[in-house]
Amino acid sequence: MNKIEDLKNIATRLRIHSLKMTTQAGSGHPTTCLSMAELTACLFFDVMRYNPNDPYDWANDEFVLSKGHAAPILWAAYAEAGIVPMDELMNLRKITSVLEGHPTPRMKWVKSATGSLGQGLSVGNGMALAMKMGKSPGRVYVLMGDGECAEGAVWEAANVASNNKLDNLYAIVDINRLGQSEQTMHGHDINAYEKKFKAFAWNTVKINGHNIEEILAAFKKRREKGRPTVILAKTIKGKGVSFVENINGWHGKPLNKEDCEKALQEIGPMPEIKAKKYVKAPKKSNKPRLAKRYDFNRNIYQDATASRFAYGNALLNLGKVNQAVVALDGDVKNSTYNDKFFERFPERSFQNYIAEQGMVGMAMGFAAKGYIPFAATFAAFLCRAHDHIRMAAYSFSNVKFVGSHVGVSIGADGPSQMGLEDLAIFRPIPDCAILYPSDAYSAEGCVESLAKSEGMGYLRTTRPKTPLIYTRKDKFPIGGSKVLKKSEKDVATVIAAGITVHEALKAYQELKKEKINIRVIDAYSIQPIDRRTISRAAKEARNNVVVVEDHFQNGGLGDAVSLALAGEARIVHLCVKELPRSGTPEELLDKYGLNAKHIKKAVKKFINS
Amino acid sequence: MNKIEDLKNIATRLRIHSLKMTTQAGSGHPTTCLSMAELTACLFFDVMRYNPNDPYDWANDEFVLSKGHAAPILWAAYAEAGIVPMDELMNLRKITSVLEGHPTPRMKWVKSATGSLGQGLSVGNGMALAMKMGKSPGRVYVLMGDGECAEGAVWEAANVASNNKLDNLYAIVDINRLGQSEQTMHGHDINAYEKKFKAFAWNTVKINGHNIEEILAAFKKRREKGRPTVILAKTIKGKGVSFVENINGWHGKPLNKEDCEKALQEIGPMPEIKAKKYVKAPKKSNKPRLAKRYDFNRNIYQDATASRFAYGNALLNLGKVNQAVVALDGDVKNSTYNDKFFERFPERSFQNYIAEQGMVGMAMGFAAKGYIPFAATFAAFLCRAHDHIRMAAYSFSNVKFVGSHVGVSIGADGPSQMGLEDLAIFRPIPDCAILYPSDAYSAEGCVESLAKSEGMGYLRTTRPKTPLIYTRKDKFPIGGSKVLKKSEKDVATVIAAGITVHEALKAYQELKKEKINIRVIDAYSIQPIDRRTISRAAKEARNNVVVVEDHFQNGGLGDAVSLALAGEARIVHLCVKELPRSGTPEELLDKYGLNAKHIKKAVKKFINS
Repeated sequence: MNKIEDLKNIATRLRIHSLKMTTQAGSGHPTTCLSMAELTACLFFDVMRYNPNDPYDWANDEFVLSKGHAAPILWAAYAEAGIVPMDELMNLRKITSVLEGHPTPRMKWVKSATGSLGQGLSVGNGMALAMKMGKSPGRVYVLMGDGECAEGAVWEAANVASNNKLDNLYAIVDINRLGQSEQTMHGHDINAYEKKFKAFAWNTVKINGHNIEEILAAFKKRREKGRPTVILAKTIKGKGVSFVENINGWHGKPLNKEDCEKALQEIGPMPEIKAKKYVKAPKKSNKPRLAKRYDFNRNIYQDATASRFAYGNALLNLGKVNQAVVALDGDVKNSTYNDKFFERFPERSFQNYIAEQGMVGMAMGFAAKGYIPFAATFAAFLCRAHDHIRMAAYSFSNVKFVGSHVGVSIGADGPSQMGLEDLAIFRPIPDCAILYPSDAYSAEGCVESLAKSEGMGYLRTTRPKTPLIYTRKDKFPIGGSKVLKKSEKDVATVIAAGITVHEALKAYQELKKEKINIRVIDAYSIQPIDRRTISRAAKEARNNVVVVEDHFQNGGLGDAVSLALAGEARIVHLCVKELPRSGTPEELLDKYGLNAKHIKKAVKKFINS
Repeated sequence: MNKIEDLKNIATRLRIHSLKMTTQAGSGHPTTCLSMAELTACLFFDVMRYNPNDPYDWANDEFVLSKGHAAPILWAAYAEAGIVPMDELMNLRKITSVLEGHPTPRMKWVKSATGSLGQGLSVGNGMALAMKMGKSPGRVYVLMGDGECAEGAVWEAANVASNNKLDNLYAIVDINRLGQSEQTMHGHDINAYEKKFKAFAWNTVKINGHNIEEILAAFKKRREKGRPTVILAKTIKGKGVSFVENINGWHGKPLNKEDCEKALQEIGPMPEIKAKKYVKAPKKSNKPRLAKRYDFNRNIYQDATASRFAYGNALLNLGKVNQAVVALDGDVKNSTYNDKFFERFPERSFQNYIAEQGMVGMAMGFAAKGYIPFAATFAAFLCRAHDHIRMAAYSFSNVKFVGSHVGVSIGADGPSQMGLEDLAIFRPIPDCAILYPSDAYSAEGCVESLAKSEGMGYLRTTRPKTPLIYTRKDKFPIGGSKVLKKSEKDVATVIAAGITVHEALKAYQELKKEKINIRVIDAYSIQPIDRRTISRAAKEARNNVVVVEDHFQNGGLGDAVSLALAGEARIVHLCVKELPRSGTPEELLDKYGLNAKHIKKAVKKFINS
């Protein structure tokens, strides 16, 4: 019984911290912290096992605050656990503090940034799968808001969690009724949530989220094995402060100093209790030792090969020497060629079905636990997971994205299947490596470079077969490029990547017959772009530059080259300038001006001007 | 009974068309057409009411093929209905035909492009709401695949459909068991789907999707009023062709000529029946006559005002003179200021809760029915709906997107809330207008310009208050810019937009004291960019250009200016070059190099070089 009183008191301490922190910061979401004070107290000081000295202890339970706007109470819990210095709390949201407005891994116990709602559960899936695979005794606890359950991403993750029998995964939904601008769709109708989670094959437990006994009992309850569990906690937003309790219009608003004083008086004095004594370390469990080599066996190719096919081969061989590599799919593995890995390493292969957000969230979870996920789908469908990709960047996630079927060169399937804006998704992300191979050998080389390099990376692959240009010994470092044709008489530089490299080479051959020399650069590293080589080529070849790419005009290679050359050269940009349509690859490359014919024309226009 | 036989025969005709079309095209998805042949026959030739002479007849039922890869059978149905010439079917996927690989509105009966899965239901929501509002007797039928039910977007839409009591909306799920690369999560477990839709408060009907009687009965069944209905149809992928029926590995593969012959022999001769006679025209119903003016009453401002706040005022006043305008929210209307419209025009305001994909899909549905939706959320969260936005472009949708809370200038909430890649989402879309106002008056002017201009548009608004620069009479046409400071002694041009305009003006004042003149341009039209003015300014001001924007380095104003000036000027680009963090707006503008101090430094560097 003493424990119960202590947990109540810890909840009170967390409330007091949350109020003071947000008032001090002058911004933040105190009321959403107040509704989860008891849940947080119970999780951090009874339910969870973690080694307060090591956020990376393999045996730790993992916690994901999916409702990231409740960051203050998360920081407060870590302070109570002795992990964050108590005075640091008053630095909430300061530019000098890792206690940001929404959680990011700048604070080491946060494994994945949150704050864009509805993503935490998919991250939890990845962590739970990684922990099962690596035999961690830990569990994953994902604390969600009720409002964010409107996000489809929650149901993608709920689906995959039960399908994978993730009984080491707990979701806790803080059902405090109020969203940002009005009551949530279901308000306090806790049964509406229960029906949904039951339909998605979860164990469900309904409780009063302010009752410590009920919370503890919920986590102890025996439940159907092989299923994830959700605790549906009915709570009051602003609980504990009468004048904000359960009142609309208090989302994302700190109390002013006067109101804060009033609130603190209502709550009473800070209970004197050392919460830290309730932190429970986990049983010892060693992280699995995984072979992590990158020098995989390169294949030999005889004929024209699709770069996506070579990627599949490379991933398979990488998987043989690197046990940290896992492959993720959204039911297109026979198109991206992740299927080769899936067949050989089913235990390291994870199907998300047609749910790209869930796939990317899962990848973030795997990366958070030290794995190297390769998440592949059609480049066009990476748009579906753009927000998750963005959050993966803020999570500093070591995730490798692969987008196949890029550009109009996919042909007859039509625009909905053409990746024409994928470079525009990844280029804005600072330090995200983007490689775009043009043949089978470069595809394999790019896989090696991306796998080796810690951090986010994107591989852009092509649907049609393309001729071989390189050898299996060639290297494709991030930031590099290949000068494929060069002479002292070059009148222009053609900068291409992927399928357009072959068009540039055709143009070279045909122009050569007319005694016109051009430089041809394979800019396989879209980001970082090889500024030095490009700039030098421009200078050496009359400052005439033709960029040709199978991508929309904005956001891709053309932008990258323009920025790199800022002011140094004349640039003609051949790219997709209108909304495209179905047709054969050849017809479309011609219609949108991306083939050898148009390259030649652009070069000649330079000469004649 | 004759009717039943005829529908069976129509289904057979649709099968034969689908097989021949895809074999002729050499690509496509015949087996997914075969599973829905009876469903299609019943829908187009018994259930639905439509005027075959007018796709825009206000009384028409609407059909959305959410599983867009089944396009061939859709075209075949329109051919059988006499809408598409029968021989045109053999032009499937040709560059000369509107019968594309996946449906696009190039074929006039298609109101919304599909092919990225899981989107159709949200489009159906918008159409159904628009039809209720405009008192159309029509219903909306959305035909979905089972595989796409893994997409969260389906559940966002399912949620909103029942919450809005859309009893004029029918979803039909073609549960053919097989996805692209393997069996779907639930295979033929039709009850799994029933549980989910029931939990999302839908009427559900389970049928054998190849049994005409069952299909017809399902649509006639009396059901709970005020709820949308889903028909869960158990089907066989490849039905009717023994050697592809229910076999994995036949997704997206046409039969070769020999196999096609074999298949056609199995199916038997083309039944001789004129399906057209079963096309049922709807009762007459006139489209509501809506006032559609754009010259709304502009507000007067006294002090610094956030552009998002002024946008809210403008939308409200636009709504007063334009009854086609509707406002959509994802539970942030008190931040985007869509709430002003919501309060004044609740009947034209639609809440999607925290479900941005659903919001954008709904907007596409409204636009398809002739309304002008303004869909607003935080710019960062538009990433969540990127794939829907992409498909809105292929739908040629007249949707206006509004993204608030852009850039590091939002301050302490931290990176998850900062729109720093939103320009990179919209810029690649050909012909998408992007306006980015810097004060309250320009915000209102931009709303007018976007509303007036048919097609996709994006308005980027700012969280903090900014000083007034313009007057209520100023116009902000798409493609324009404002030269705010200009002299004959200008040593550089500073191109800014939004909040950085004010930093540029500060820099101007401070430099002026040092007798250094700069030109300042407010490039409020990010797309199309005002190339002429920028180019001229560059020439007149020593070809020194500073671009300063609160956006990541790639994909935004910097790229736009670089492309516009290609080679004409030296460009220094001040922008967010690393993953940002929490802090005050002022601290962050300084830390990431976007304020007057850094602009001055950049200008001086030009002078001294």
